[in-house]
Amino acid sequence: MAKIEPRTLRGFRDYLPETMIPRERLMDTAKRVYRSFGFSPIDTPALEYLDILLGKGSDETDKQMYRFKDNGGRDVGMRFDLTIPLARFVAQHQNALPLPFKRYHIATVWRGENAQKGRYREFVQCDFDTIGTLSDAADIEMVLVIHELFRAIGVEKFTIRVNNRKVLNGLLEKLNLVEHSTAVLRAIDKLAKIGADKVTEELAATANCGPEQAAAVLALCSMSGDNASILNQLDQLVAGNATGETGAAQLRAVIDGTTAAGVAAERIKLDVSIARGLDYYTGTIVETFLDDLPTIGSVCSGGRYDNLAELYTNQQLPGIGASLGLDRLLSALEELGVLPKISTPAPIFIPYFDAKRLGDYLKLAQRLRRASFGVEVYPDPKKLGAQLRYADRRGFAVALVAGDQEFATNSVQVKNLKESGSATVSLEGTALEEELRKII
Amino acid sequence: MAKIEPRTLRGFRDYLPETMIPRERLMDTAKRVYRSFGFSPIDTPALEYLDILLGKGSDETDKQMYRFKDNGGRDVGMRFDLTIPLARFVAQHQNALPLPFKRYHIATVWRGENAQKGRYREFVQCDFDTIGTLSDAADIEMVLVIHELFRAIGVEKFTIRVNNRKVLNGLLEKLNLVEHSTAVLRAIDKLAKIGADKVTEELAATANCGPEQAAAVLALCSMSGDNASILNQLDQLVAGNATGETGAAQLRAVIDGTTAAGVAAERIKLDVSIARGLDYYTGTIVETFLDDLPTIGSVCSGGRYDNLAELYTNQQLPGIGASLGLDRLLSALEELGVLPKISTPAPIFIPYFDAKRLGDYLKLAQRLRRASFGVEVYPDPKKLGAQLRYADRRGFAVALVAGDQEFATNSVQVKNLKESGSATVSLEGTALEEELRKII
Repeated sequence: MAKIEPRTLRGFRDYLPETMIPRERLMDTAKRVYRSFGFSPIDTPALEYLDILLGKGSDETDKQMYRFKDNGGRDVGMRFDLTIPLARFVAQHQNALPLPFKRYHIATVWRGENAQKGRYREFVQCDFDTIGTLSDAADIEMVLVIHELFRAIGVEKFTIRVNNRKVLNGLLEKLNLVEHSTAVLRAIDKLAKIGADKVTEELAATANCGPEQAAAVLALCSMSGDNASILNQLDQLVAGNATGETGAAQLRAVIDGTTAAGVAAERIKLDVSIARGLDYYTGTIVETFLDDLPTIGSVCSGGRYDNLAELYTNQQLPGIGASLGLDRLLSALEELGVLPKISTPAPIFIPYFDAKRLGDYLKLAQRLRRASFGVEVYPDPKKLGAQLRYADRRGFAVALVAGDQEFATNSVQVKNLKESGSATVSLEGTALEEELRKII
Repeated sequence: MAKIEPRTLRGFRDYLPETMIPRERLMDTAKRVYRSFGFSPIDTPALEYLDILLGKGSDETDKQMYRFKDNGGRDVGMRFDLTIPLARFVAQHQNALPLPFKRYHIATVWRGENAQKGRYREFVQCDFDTIGTLSDAADIEMVLVIHELFRAIGVEKFTIRVNNRKVLNGLLEKLNLVEHSTAVLRAIDKLAKIGADKVTEELAATANCGPEQAAAVLALCSMSGDNASILNQLDQLVAGNATGETGAAQLRAVIDGTTAAGVAAERIKLDVSIARGLDYYTGTIVETFLDDLPTIGSVCSGGRYDNLAELYTNQQLPGIGASLGLDRLLSALEELGVLPKISTPAPIFIPYFDAKRLGDYLKLAQRLRRASFGVEVYPDPKKLGAQLRYADRRGFAVALVAGDQEFATNSVQVKNLKESGSATVSLEGTALEEELRKII
């Protein structure tokens, strides 16, 4: 019979064990950290009615969406993020959810992007959000969660960049530039590339800025110094404008609150240049960069929004949250070489050495699993050399070899596969468990 | 603006925290058990080329498949199980995978079934399989994995029913009934309903069975007694036929091996009546029933197949594995009332009692998180009563209340929310952690 070529769709990928083991570990870590702050898991369908999803992201997400008619003739789409489903979920179940509602959601999303290196059409997002509170405490907590997350993942050097949308909005109000805000944003976005003089020219030409207005805008964008110094500069820049003052006060609350909770100063950086989806966020915004690989971009981003579910309900539901880009972070950790190379989740290997002794091997394996060790028993009584080559390729830490001689003395040979030492250990009592704990 | 009605597609559902928390715990347990036997995680895309999926299950799965043309005009389908993707995966990556290849895969699948009570169009499967060995050790291990899985989930009374396809095949060979096997199967399937006499009549009419042939077939189906007794009856029934003898020997190996590994006799039952997708499996087959809720059907089923990936590769890849029906099991555990009712994954609640003290609450929460406690801080400085009502609704175990009085004495009030006791505990040293460990 003709074979079908085994292949995956462009932009989609398989995860083999050596990639899936650390990927699963990252997901487990995210869950553990989210739970430790009281966020609860939820899940929503991969497929939604098309009208739930359409026009909720951008023209781009509409275009990239996987959509079709199902067998019942309904127009459906595959979710492209976890925020729109959250909005629908909260509107639909609002009577069953006590507010504030804190949820995490770790799930796959799909976008038919142009596939290019490192960009996939299917990827996992790890979102957490708090719905139903305007308190700064939730803003502070978002930063704390990100901080604990990266610590727990084992990344030592990372920077959480924090801004507040109200600061620039307030300044634009104060300078009477609100109607030109898009032009202003476009101009200051080019600062690093074309320099202050050219930006001043562009501000004059496209946003009708006088020299003092341009100077104030540029002062905001070129602020430097430590967080305390930037906060002081901000206070002066926005003084007299309520929006700006609120933004500056919220930034101060985030810095003070995270510091009180023990976050080191170098992990958090006020950065008035980050903007993130300007139409969407309304207050605090954050991006997270790996200090050793900043070029990969933000690996965890989020912010505050005033009204999550306005398309589906009249209830006003403010929220704040962030999303860990799991697969982007995984690529980064791979590139930094901090992911251990293992393709077995069980560290102990028992060769099937003596064909008559299968029951004894299985019994030994069960004993060790009950003591919380992962144990793989080789299924075929092949030559020991072949079995140990398999063990080597799989990356086990220890092999437990037992034949007639060992069974006669109720013992087992413990082979350290990492350091190639070997010892005979009794099966009496807990000597074996103790020896294994030393090695693993 | 007109609101869009928030709703989910028929046959799809949201998981709220009180259902998702135990669901996630089941998935975590399955992972832990699979890993402890050396199974590694993999992941494959939700979408596959249509020709990979089509015609691989049954007419039924073809009809139920979600399929469409993607934006690039490709015919694609959403996976309806995890076995076809595994076959494609193994064929595609065979050079990168050491054999035996042991993988688990916990993922969502979609089937456009007629939606009815308890049947969903989207559900999670938890599969584990061993590819590349014909050894009985893998058959034994499949049963051991299922046994450990249900123990770890906390189900005490369950029965793993085991059969082997070769036993019936061998008997049919011996009786010269191979060409009538479908008719024989159809007839014996009615045994419970119509009784032995009617089945004998039907065997004569549709399978051309003489009285002795019919008696032998009925002897197989009505076998009773303990496992040892059934094994002895089987040996006699199939004696002289190689296929049947192999099947009986494999059944004996599974019983002996699992017994050697410590499985109690009442957890495993030889049951020659289970057949499971006759065209697919070729050796050992298993189904798992909850003793207190047998009517829900098998919650974990699987078996041995001779050639997994023959549609995609010339390499012969025998395999064996089983699939835990996560959502069916979840419904069953809910019905049995063994799922705890909690909607918070963090047991400790800190009310935001004194508006000036946010930093102190955050610091206390961080201290406890570092000691592995889950802690939620309420985000708004509302009245204590309102915050405690929220805590009650969410199901926290403990509230830590601190105001001026407590801060002045560097202490905190520990309120046991389950037993409504209260004590003042010092924040010095580890007294608080010790007190909390007592309660939680």
